[in-house]
Amino acid sequence: MAKEPKKLDELFHDTLKDIYFAEKKILTTLPKMAKAAQNEELRAAFEKHEAETEDQVGRLEQVFAAIDKKPQGKTCAAIVGITDEGAEIMKEYKGSPALDAGLLAAAQAVEHYEISRYGTLIAWAELGLEDAVSLLQETLEEEKTTDETLTDIAKTAVNQQAEAA
Amino acid sequence: MAKEPKKLDELFHDTLKDIYFAEKKILTTLPKMAKAAQNEELRAAFEKHEAETEDQVGRLEQVFAAIDKKPQGKTCAAIVGITDEGAEIMKEYKGSPALDAGLLAAAQAVEHYEISRYGTLIAWAELGLEDAVSLLQETLEEEKTTDETLTDIAKTAVNQQAEAA
Repeated sequence: MAKEPKKLDELFHDTLKDIYFAEKKILTTLPKMAKAAQNEELRAAFEKHEAETEDQVGRLEQVFAAIDKKPQGKTCAAIVGITDEGAEIMKEYKGSPALDAGLLAAAQAVEHYEISRYGTLIAWAELGLEDAVSLLQETLEEEKTTDETLTDIAKTAVNQQAEAA
Repeated sequence: MAKEPKKLDELFHDTLKDIYFAEKKILTTLPKMAKAAQNEELRAAFEKHEAETEDQVGRLEQVFAAIDKKPQGKTCAAIVGITDEGAEIMKEYKGSPALDAGLLAAAQAVEHYEISRYGTLIAWAELGLEDAVSLLQETLEEEKTTDETLTDIAKTAVNQQAEAA
């Protein structure tokens, strides 16, 4: 018997597993980035976002519950690649005045990946998973705010510092 | 003798090599996505973006020239991960009404990666590489417009189609 092609509800579930894996990966990465950051404001931003990420994992677990599934991650090659690039920067720019600028770039790549994933999940959830929409929307707003905060820190402190060195 | 720590100009150059690799990777991926797309509007968007991406590669080559470097790519683990996820979707959702929705999600992850990279490069170029700023800005605007077009296609056609199936 031919297998039924996968449908949108499975795509939603697959993508939920992808971002659940990604958020958990980010949770292990943020403390390393906070420890590496030289600029105090940047360190504080990473620490604040770590706390937010814990809440975001909790919200994803509520979305799994809303579709009657057990919370489960699925290796997300994209976030592995993005965080590997961040790890490489921490290694290659250790002790450099440009380190913080590199950390910021890595963190903004992470935020944009998440912004794209939550945007997609919301568009799908709007087709009939109203409870999930507000949970996902809350996280999306946090990711956008984090990205803006990082842009501000880049402009006001970190890049100038790197350039002056 | 201790090695000098790497500075912001090297970080700019490294990141330029990263996005140059990424754009070339995307150039090989877009025709596959266009071929796989079921929705005509989506296929046309991928084809249009392929032509834009060729121009974007050319602009990056001008930025390399502006810093007196030869255009050169450096494997970008992030874009490899993102495009691998896209390839997996094309395989797993082949023949599914949800295929186009998955292609859209993959393409928007690509756009957001690029938006973050060009945003970062512009912030650094603003510290003294004025010629590069306008080239990078032109591409950033194209990436944002592509992302918005994909969002519109998702909302008006593809997701509804996937849901109705």
